[in-house]
Amino acid sequence: MNIAIIGLGLMGASFAKRLSPQKDKIIYGVDQNEQTIQTALDLNIIKEGSTKPSEIVGKCKLVILALYPSMIKPWIEENQQYLESKTILMDISGVKTNIIKPVQSILRDDLELISIHPMCGRESKGIDFAQADIFDNANFIIVPTEKNTQKAIESAKQLGKDLRVKNISKLSCEEHDKMIGFLSQLTHVIAVSLMNTHDNSHLVEYTGDSFRDLTRIATINEDLWSELFLLNKDILLEEIDQFLDSTKHFRDSLEKEDVSEMKRLFIQSTKRRKLFNK
Amino acid sequence: MNIAIIGLGLMGASFAKRLSPQKDKIIYGVDQNEQTIQTALDLNIIKEGSTKPSEIVGKCKLVILALYPSMIKPWIEENQQYLESKTILMDISGVKTNIIKPVQSILRDDLELISIHPMCGRESKGIDFAQADIFDNANFIIVPTEKNTQKAIESAKQLGKDLRVKNISKLSCEEHDKMIGFLSQLTHVIAVSLMNTHDNSHLVEYTGDSFRDLTRIATINEDLWSELFLLNKDILLEEIDQFLDSTKHFRDSLEKEDVSEMKRLFIQSTKRRKLFNK
Repeated sequence: MNIAIIGLGLMGASFAKRLSPQKDKIIYGVDQNEQTIQTALDLNIIKEGSTKPSEIVGKCKLVILALYPSMIKPWIEENQQYLESKTILMDISGVKTNIIKPVQSILRDDLELISIHPMCGRESKGIDFAQADIFDNANFIIVPTEKNTQKAIESAKQLGKDLRVKNISKLSCEEHDKMIGFLSQLTHVIAVSLMNTHDNSHLVEYTGDSFRDLTRIATINEDLWSELFLLNKDILLEEIDQFLDSTKHFRDSLEKEDVSEMKRLFIQSTKRRKLFNK
Repeated sequence: MNIAIIGLGLMGASFAKRLSPQKDKIIYGVDQNEQTIQTALDLNIIKEGSTKPSEIVGKCKLVILALYPSMIKPWIEENQQYLESKTILMDISGVKTNIIKPVQSILRDDLELISIHPMCGRESKGIDFAQADIFDNANFIIVPTEKNTQKAIESAKQLGKDLRVKNISKLSCEEHDKMIGFLSQLTHVIAVSLMNTHDNSHLVEYTGDSFRDLTRIATINEDLWSELFLLNKDILLEEIDQFLDSTKHFRDSLEKEDVSEMKRLFIQSTKRRKLFNK
């Protein structure tokens, strides 16, 4: 089976690293940067690569789009002419509703886009940080729409197995984006806002693991995450507002010295957090 | 040297575990719970113990108060009569200004309290969770006031060395409480408020390490932390308000789709966070 990976950044190249040793697959790569393609060839994680999709994608029945979210629709508009009929495309973007639906509406009728989200991004970017093992502990979410066939959903599931992810599940676009809005996007907003609260460089030497753990994700790729946030704006604003209300409520309980309410909030958070222990 | 540890909870018993094997020290324990004393004797981490301070503290030149913050002043009022002249007391509480100053003002003139803060608390409580190695990676902060002698400060430093902490430093009460307000207390407020934002039990299976890391400290001892927060109320309210402003500012930038401001905030947080990498 020939697979094309479009975009050999951190994620695309990690796909190539994990899939290329599998004997039933031949991996092809497309990237706008010639040097990146040369690196992928040197690493022996693609068989062939090009900056021109037209030279590659026609021979592949599966095309994985590992592009920035804003690039997916333009890429389809420009390059779907080169795809063989029945080719399956998969995008791996971190937000779904506002990406997949517009793309599916312009896609050729004889092609199919099935959306997946392997939850294993890293804050670093580029092929140099790619690793096959980022999939080992990943949740792999398949996000079908009413346009998808059972066959494409099965292909997505098989890809998850081939990537050897920890867990494969299925969500609707709306469920996915709400889940991501809370678990991932809101937590990034919090970490970023905490680091931006005020200058804190004089506190480095006193810092323990709690602060480091909480702010690790404040190291962030500004181009990718501003796109992801805008694409999920309504849901994220709602999550931020609920979090602000929750924090404000705690603040007011402290101001009023309402110890019984503070304790109730501590007990509730402790109970809820315990469900998340591995 | 005879050392009395008052309160054999998680922290007090960890002190006993680390110090008791050292040949130049004999460790005594006081706890209100007889069973806890028996456990400490069985573990061979104290030589002798009692529920009555009067039976223990008179033979010790160093008394470590590993009590809940609200218990420190009452303990001194009741028991300082049993201390030998020149005894040094050390409290280990997580907030300083509102604890030390009131205690120092009622302390007998021939006694001295020097405050220390080994930053290695855990969320669990009780002697069963005590571990000698919690000090290995700890910052150990000495918090002298104008009432302290150089000799007592040196004793505190020596204790830090004997505990084999990672780093010993010195801060004023005000500096300490501001640092703790930001690095520790605000982060706990955030983690607790995030868990309390809304029910989230249906999201457990999708959760990655980022969310787990950020919310680990939402598992919290409600009695201890409500005391610590109230004792540092003004500073903590100020920190929460600054954090709320910072988050609100990010929220408004997203609402207005002000991408350049969002990117500026991401870049600033990334730059600041990098200083905290170990």
